[in-house]
Amino acid sequence: MLSWDKLSVEQQQQVEYQLRILKRGAAEIVPEEALKMKIMKAVVTETPLKVKLGLDPSAPDIHIGHTVVLHKLRQFQDLGHEVQLIIGDFTGRIGDPTGKSETRKQLSEEDVKHNAQTYQAQLAKVLDLNRTSFYYNSTWLGELRFDDVLRLAGKVTVARMLERDDFAKRYAANQPIHVQEFFYPLMQGYDSVSLESDIELGGTDQTFNILMGRTLQGAYEIKEGQVAILMPLLEGLDGVQKMSKSLRNYIGIDEQPNDIFGKTMSIPDTLMLKYFELTTALSNEEIEELRQGLEAGTIHPRDAKLRLAKLYVEMYHSVEAAEEAEQHFITVFQKRTLPDDIEEVNLDSSHLEAGSLSIIKLLVSLSLQSSNGEARRSVEQGAVKINEQKLTDIHAQITPVDGDILQVGKRKFVRIKLS
Amino acid sequence: MLSWDKLSVEQQQQVEYQLRILKRGAAEIVPEEALKMKIMKAVVTETPLKVKLGLDPSAPDIHIGHTVVLHKLRQFQDLGHEVQLIIGDFTGRIGDPTGKSETRKQLSEEDVKHNAQTYQAQLAKVLDLNRTSFYYNSTWLGELRFDDVLRLAGKVTVARMLERDDFAKRYAANQPIHVQEFFYPLMQGYDSVSLESDIELGGTDQTFNILMGRTLQGAYEIKEGQVAILMPLLEGLDGVQKMSKSLRNYIGIDEQPNDIFGKTMSIPDTLMLKYFELTTALSNEEIEELRQGLEAGTIHPRDAKLRLAKLYVEMYHSVEAAEEAEQHFITVFQKRTLPDDIEEVNLDSSHLEAGSLSIIKLLVSLSLQSSNGEARRSVEQGAVKINEQKLTDIHAQITPVDGDILQVGKRKFVRIKLS
Repeated sequence: MLSWDKLSVEQQQQVEYQLRILKRGAAEIVPEEALKMKIMKAVVTETPLKVKLGLDPSAPDIHIGHTVVLHKLRQFQDLGHEVQLIIGDFTGRIGDPTGKSETRKQLSEEDVKHNAQTYQAQLAKVLDLNRTSFYYNSTWLGELRFDDVLRLAGKVTVARMLERDDFAKRYAANQPIHVQEFFYPLMQGYDSVSLESDIELGGTDQTFNILMGRTLQGAYEIKEGQVAILMPLLEGLDGVQKMSKSLRNYIGIDEQPNDIFGKTMSIPDTLMLKYFELTTALSNEEIEELRQGLEAGTIHPRDAKLRLAKLYVEMYHSVEAAEEAEQHFITVFQKRTLPDDIEEVNLDSSHLEAGSLSIIKLLVSLSLQSSNGEARRSVEQGAVKINEQKLTDIHAQITPVDGDILQVGKRKFVRIKLS
Repeated sequence: MLSWDKLSVEQQQQVEYQLRILKRGAAEIVPEEALKMKIMKAVVTETPLKVKLGLDPSAPDIHIGHTVVLHKLRQFQDLGHEVQLIIGDFTGRIGDPTGKSETRKQLSEEDVKHNAQTYQAQLAKVLDLNRTSFYYNSTWLGELRFDDVLRLAGKVTVARMLERDDFAKRYAANQPIHVQEFFYPLMQGYDSVSLESDIELGGTDQTFNILMGRTLQGAYEIKEGQVAILMPLLEGLDGVQKMSKSLRNYIGIDEQPNDIFGKTMSIPDTLMLKYFELTTALSNEEIEELRQGLEAGTIHPRDAKLRLAKLYVEMYHSVEAAEEAEQHFITVFQKRTLPDDIEEVNLDSSHLEAGSLSIIKLLVSLSLQSSNGEARRSVEQGAVKINEQKLTDIHAQITPVDGDILQVGKRKFVRIKLS
């Protein structure tokens, strides 16, 4: 058993350094103490950890939300560890008994291969492919026979399965759960058995499935169960719902530079730091600087967001493309639509609670709208913009800053002056 | 669609004749209308029905309790139908995750083969082997791969599974149910898919599993789902609990003639007709005659039981062995131990309720014991016999008949005279 006291000072510093980086932004690490042990062992034995991520074979169109785990993987790689990417092609070949799930519609082997290639090209933009191994889980799952499957199914209880959030809810609501569905976590867990993964990454919605891998590794007597590093789900452009293709609130990493740039500029200010922390390669120190600047008001949110947008385009296209996209954004969006003679309107700070107020109240306070009802309708109809960014959430809380430009429809503009 | 009106009178009579025989003794037929349809079709098309029974590969020691379903199968055979016997060797090869179930301990292929041979020899005593096909379910189950298994598991819901009595109870009591266990009914059901069985037989404790076969046949689009014929569970020698090896209340068909005979004579009178109906080849008419004779008192229960004991020894050994066993029983048991000068004691009929009274009251009424407590202890210690048969159930209800001999210990005897 490795103990902290037996490590040299340099080794202890190395472990602490790695932990600081790896914990950044993580929603939960289960069990956290085991992560420390694994890193201690890796440092002492100079053996890289095997860090696993499962990929859905049906949706190779990666967006910024997906890159949260990819950036965490990249941090592992930069610290010398190895990444195992598992393409769940076996799962993808099975139809969904309910016929409802779009992501589980039956895929041909060709589909899967094609998707995997798309993945590799996209992932190369975040990951170091020299430290990345790709696997198809059909390699081992496809070899299992009925008796192997039964042994697998003998490792867990029905009650444990029904603890999974979505199962628990559906069971309680008398909605059908097919016995087949129990095998999705079992298969994902068996992948970890097969590859003897040390760590598995996923969003917080993957907690159950990843811990199943830890359980199964124990049941199959793999020395130390894997550690789950659970990353928060990234809210999309609306600032509320998880970024996803179906909600159309995403920034795709294969989108055109101008689209990536423009969409990034529409992220709510409140989420900006989270985006920096989870989806860029900025160091902890740089992010801290940014946070302090924003808090002190020495960095304008718009400038920070311009930086984020440029970072994305640099990462997913090139430095030149980023420059161009910025110019394009400034020219076409920021300049064009604003008239030269915007009226400056005083906003009484006493209207603000802790520096902010609701968009509805803001519109009325600035006399842009005559009533709450009118204000609400305008927001709902997409007629309201703040600093060129459309705002459609009637519950949005706004923190106005001197110089913010509020717009309703095509003709009403005001520039805020706090008083 | 076959309709009753289109059958000839002879065909209609044939269907009714078969149904009369096949329904005898059955606890439940699900769905009953479908059984009639299947027989109609068999009669009209002159195609035998495929009647399935699953056999546990671990326990080839058949007792009279097991023969309930075997006799039903034999009735099908005598009516021209075919029997499918499935040796569940695949199931037997899988260990039990709880390690608790004796019947599910892992069997080697040799064990299974050996057990199967023992089965054949024993089954030949009830079944017509010319109309019997033997199958090992590993033939098809062993060929299934993970994706086939997933498809199978996609045919049923978790809620449906948890409706099974024992699962429901265990789930409610927070006792573990392993996901593996869901596959026992699924495998049994898949056997019916594979063999396209028309009918499956089993005890009432098999209702869920057999109906799963019907469900799965539907899911795999086999035209008409199988019909479940559920036979009652036969109480053992104690007259209360299901006959089973573990409770030692059984008559094994491979036991020595004298043992079969003696054990049969110890069956409670009240169960005799059930034994005749479920475990002999006597015709419905003969059984009706017996029932009426016993009710009218023209047949003495002891004589009926002697007939049953002889029938068993004839069936499982030979006519000669049956004669010898009867002689042995009468000489050794019935004659030897009884003294010549047994006192006749009047039993006041007014003590009886609906013709019977408890063994405790009987012993006290006949002054064989001085108190209820003393009587209870004697029964518990196995010191009490009625007509040479030991009686150990202190709650036994006795229906005394003129001439019955009651005995306590080695020396106290009385012959009952009803008054």
